[in-house]
Amino acid sequence: MRNLTFSFDFVSPYAYLAAERIEALAERNDCRVTWRPILLAALLNRNKQLGPAEIPDKRTYTFKHISRLAHDLKIPLQPPPGHPFNPLLPLRIAALRPEGELILHLFRACWKDGRSIDSQEALKPLMDEDTRMRADTEEAKQLLRYNTQQAMDEGVFGVPSITVEGEVFWGLDSFPHLERYLDGQDPLNPDLLTQWETLPASAKR
Amino acid sequence: MRNLTFSFDFVSPYAYLAAERIEALAERNDCRVTWRPILLAALLNRNKQLGPAEIPDKRTYTFKHISRLAHDLKIPLQPPPGHPFNPLLPLRIAALRPEGELILHLFRACWKDGRSIDSQEALKPLMDEDTRMRADTEEAKQLLRYNTQQAMDEGVFGVPSITVEGEVFWGLDSFPHLERYLDGQDPLNPDLLTQWETLPASAKR
Repeated sequence: MRNLTFSFDFVSPYAYLAAERIEALAERNDCRVTWRPILLAALLNRNKQLGPAEIPDKRTYTFKHISRLAHDLKIPLQPPPGHPFNPLLPLRIAALRPEGELILHLFRACWKDGRSIDSQEALKPLMDEDTRMRADTEEAKQLLRYNTQQAMDEGVFGVPSITVEGEVFWGLDSFPHLERYLDGQDPLNPDLLTQWETLPASAKR
Repeated sequence: MRNLTFSFDFVSPYAYLAAERIEALAERNDCRVTWRPILLAALLNRNKQLGPAEIPDKRTYTFKHISRLAHDLKIPLQPPPGHPFNPLLPLRIAALRPEGELILHLFRACWKDGRSIDSQEALKPLMDEDTRMRADTEEAKQLLRYNTQQAMDEGVFGVPSITVEGEVFWGLDSFPHLERYLDGQDPLNPDLLTQWETLPASAKR
């Protein structure tokens, strides 16, 4: 059975929508899902990128885009009280307990019910005390850092991303490409790809 | 008849794929296309963003993604000899003559036939001398700057983008959303959108 590693950050509404669909995709294709919480901000820092919500023009567009996608997918969507928010606490909890049920519970609290999930106080009604409190341990912090580094080493640059057999698929719109890949029908031409990869830049900014 | 303003830069293979489909979309929806060449680099500079080909991990992924999309759309694709390249010359020509036929001719030379289009020498076999030479005039430079500023004023932050009645749709994957909008079925909820737009950031990097 093949493994799909699902890299996500709670801060991303795209990751929420993908999280709602990844298990069904895995089942259809006889795969299992490994949930990998990672810190999107670390990826953006590494690549000197801004997140879509950090660019004023793109911020408004992103809200419209995600609303239209949620409508397409018939997934309920309501924004949390603040965004971007600091996702470290729920990410560390998910790193310690990378279970689909718990992770969807957190995603839905944030993006379906529009609740804050970024403080111990906010998480109180959502899970038991032991799970919450372990988020502050060194173990949890290290696990999240390890996950994030591992994702970057695999070439992941955004969320959601699915890694299968070393191949990265980024974003909801890559789901059909991922399914075609799993079906052995990925149309990539290796020679053309090598040509692309070795293409010199003839202009730099 | 409604107007679709198609903002593009020859440097973007996504814009090439969209350019191959925009006239058919317009026809299906009883709209006309206004071709608007703009300088993507100016938008990226304004938003302190890097282009997908300027981020090492994203560069390789972009090549794969665009190959898969071209396959989906049955559009032939071959990269030009260098990328990113300086698109100013063909953009200025397109600014002077914003005609679909000429613009598709340039896009296809670059992304279907894999030719360079970034110098007078390279453009020689593709068009008459008068058209080529006028690209170096102050009029051409000003027109391109004007187009780019106009696009930014409308909230355009990337290419391809289609603007209709002040509403921006970004990227190939927004084509179905654009068609639904044209059909009067855009599912955006204005109250929810206002809520999103006024959402405070509860974390900043």
